[in-house]
Amino acid sequence: MTAPTTTAPILRVDGDRLWRSLMELAEIGAYDDERTGLRGVNRLALTDADAAGRRLVIGWMREAGLTVRVDRMGNIYGRREGADPDARPVLTGSHIDSVATAGAFDGCLGVLGGIEVVRTLNDLGITTRRPLEVAVFTEEEGTRFGTDMLGSAVAAGRITLGRAHALTDRDGVALGAELTRTGFDGTACERLDPPHAYVECHIEQGPVLARAGVDIGVVTGVQGISWQEITLHGRAAHAGTTPTELRADAGLAAARIVTHLRAMVESGAYGELRATVGHMAVHPGLTNIVPARAELTVDLRNPDDAAMARAEEDLLSHVRALEGEQPGLTASVRRMARTAAVPFDEEVQKAVARAADDHGLAHVSLLSGAGHDAQEIAALCPTAMVFVRGEYDGISHNPREYSNPEACAHGVDVLATTLLRLAEPVPGAATDAVPRS
Amino acid sequence: MTAPTTTAPILRVDGDRLWRSLMELAEIGAYDDERTGLRGVNRLALTDADAAGRRLVIGWMREAGLTVRVDRMGNIYGRREGADPDARPVLTGSHIDSVATAGAFDGCLGVLGGIEVVRTLNDLGITTRRPLEVAVFTEEEGTRFGTDMLGSAVAAGRITLGRAHALTDRDGVALGAELTRTGFDGTACERLDPPHAYVECHIEQGPVLARAGVDIGVVTGVQGISWQEITLHGRAAHAGTTPTELRADAGLAAARIVTHLRAMVESGAYGELRATVGHMAVHPGLTNIVPARAELTVDLRNPDDAAMARAEEDLLSHVRALEGEQPGLTASVRRMARTAAVPFDEEVQKAVARAADDHGLAHVSLLSGAGHDAQEIAALCPTAMVFVRGEYDGISHNPREYSNPEACAHGVDVLATTLLRLAEPVPGAATDAVPRS
Repeated sequence: MTAPTTTAPILRVDGDRLWRSLMELAEIGAYDDERTGLRGVNRLALTDADAAGRRLVIGWMREAGLTVRVDRMGNIYGRREGADPDARPVLTGSHIDSVATAGAFDGCLGVLGGIEVVRTLNDLGITTRRPLEVAVFTEEEGTRFGTDMLGSAVAAGRITLGRAHALTDRDGVALGAELTRTGFDGTACERLDPPHAYVECHIEQGPVLARAGVDIGVVTGVQGISWQEITLHGRAAHAGTTPTELRADAGLAAARIVTHLRAMVESGAYGELRATVGHMAVHPGLTNIVPARAELTVDLRNPDDAAMARAEEDLLSHVRALEGEQPGLTASVRRMARTAAVPFDEEVQKAVARAADDHGLAHVSLLSGAGHDAQEIAALCPTAMVFVRGEYDGISHNPREYSNPEACAHGVDVLATTLLRLAEPVPGAATDAVPRS
Repeated sequence: MTAPTTTAPILRVDGDRLWRSLMELAEIGAYDDERTGLRGVNRLALTDADAAGRRLVIGWMREAGLTVRVDRMGNIYGRREGADPDARPVLTGSHIDSVATAGAFDGCLGVLGGIEVVRTLNDLGITTRRPLEVAVFTEEEGTRFGTDMLGSAVAAGRITLGRAHALTDRDGVALGAELTRTGFDGTACERLDPPHAYVECHIEQGPVLARAGVDIGVVTGVQGISWQEITLHGRAAHAGTTPTELRADAGLAAARIVTHLRAMVESGAYGELRATVGHMAVHPGLTNIVPARAELTVDLRNPDDAAMARAEEDLLSHVRALEGEQPGLTASVRRMARTAAVPFDEEVQKAVARAADDHGLAHVSLLSGAGHDAQEIAALCPTAMVFVRGEYDGISHNPREYSNPEACAHGVDVLATTLLRLAEPVPGAATDAVPRS
């Protein structure tokens, strides 16, 4: 795609109205979280709560004049027609399903932000050449049916409808059956016609914007993810009686992997590699027994698939070297998950950055560490994301998740201006509109 | 003390008789171990099984002509009078209480070996100048009442009788009450008059002798033990969204401690340091969450108290440095246990080594990694130990514990000759006796 050649209108949304919508949606599935003492959100995909949230959102879409369709995957699209009905639409959106202990913002900001953009366009009487669509994707979290970004992956053709419908939750209930039960078994084709572009506004879920002291992140892409589980088998031995050179210490080998991973990250040899050992355990776990067995998980992230592959190879070589270091030590490595990196479109990124500049908002470019619907839709069209700052180091999937009203409004302002420019306002009195405030 | 100046008689015991006693005692408290499919021993101190074992041993002592006394701590002493009743006795012995999943050898070899020495002296009509005593110490394992080497520690005056009697098991039953219930609340003074020397024969409980291919170990001392528990508090963070430099990874800090300890051991700067991290766990323990908290235990062993103190200081400095390395990371260190090193008497060690040489048995000098009654009695008199090789890398505290009949006989041969020389055979026909075989 090429950047819009129109003049550079800007659009400022109604932050209060946006916030009221966020807070109203957060009441659906709300619960009192005992651990934090806060009000949280539990709206797993295609539960009664999720269905109630969907109905509320569809109501808002219709109030904003959108034509709503639901596809066979339960994905919801609200369409605002453009002056040129044959032009490919500009798409925005996200998801409203949540994890079991969520806050009010993850996903919802993108959906309600999209609706707020439409409301603002309506308020200002702006017509765009291209249609604008707001999407609500099904089961982005993967918490209930085990596969994240599921609805958008089906829309983009990466996962078939049949496979998605057959997925079951831990009670054995199939997703297809839940679509029927909740009335979200739509009739529209699940394969999305390639939009002109896709822009998703989402909370960062990380600390980068807060530490940088800015509200806006221009997302350069989604990192590839590699999850591996490593099991080390050594030999149990008495801590007092077994000389060091006769040990096969599985815990030491595990520790060497952890420190080696950090050294790999710090070497810079693997690009923007992130490495995390989130789980590590040793057995039998007694003070005076050399560990016979250790297990650890390795979570690697990298925006560059070639660098990721090199990092995986280095890790494997290191594990093999550890087998040589301590006679009697053996290791097994099992791949748990692997997703490719998704770089976002540079022109759409530039459009987001220019919009932020034009709103006078400082911004930084950053990677998305988490997965998002945008990484699936990126297979269909030029895509980018706007990240919004979160408090408390961007904690998410937790009732403490919080992005303040100003940060949310700023993020949706940038979304609005970006979408408007991509959708190409039809010249006329209203197109040069500046906001009320 | 000075080395005996007598000529060098040797004494060879009846290995078959020794083995039959070991196997007979192992029937008391025997159980079928489900995990190994083997027959194990469960004879916790002052249970009915331990009392039955004590009665069997006392019977054997009396059959061997020993005069038996039981002290107020339940320690049992069988005395073979010497030609000079005023001379300080030579003491040998060990314990017959066991852990819950034990084999037949731990402790029992020292007690039954001592009785076998007496039987052999009787068979050969040997009189010694010094009396010879065989001890059975109460609650060496510490498994039931929580303090190991308890009976010998009371005998040596390190722990008071009142404190020992007040110790309770996990059902709240006091040791003093169990002494009364089992009839082992003796009347002899619990403080042992310093013997002339103490020699204890014990299975190695480690792999050194097996790896060296020898039956006999001359024990140079018991390592000091330092147990510490380290808790690291970092910050939970999302593996994908949190840049490396913004992390406070408690699991990484734990791993750095493990690898640093190994480097300390390998540096040689802390003498014969052994370091083990037997327990290590991270929380919340999820693949994609940087650990917020990690716990590990550190087991340090060192035969040199000064080197041990340096190692402890270095460890603490390292932990403090880790706090600086990752902002937001804090550590707490709690001492769980600390015992001083006990070097054994060089002359008694030499006597053991010479006895082995004179039996034509190869031997190596080695540290004791585990604790033994000898380390308590060493406070009273020159002390050393004879270690006997175990199969399966010397596995112990497990039904797989096994020292073969020949290794046991060799160990008790060395014990016998050492005790005989220390007790100074009275010159006469029988003193130059050579064994039957």
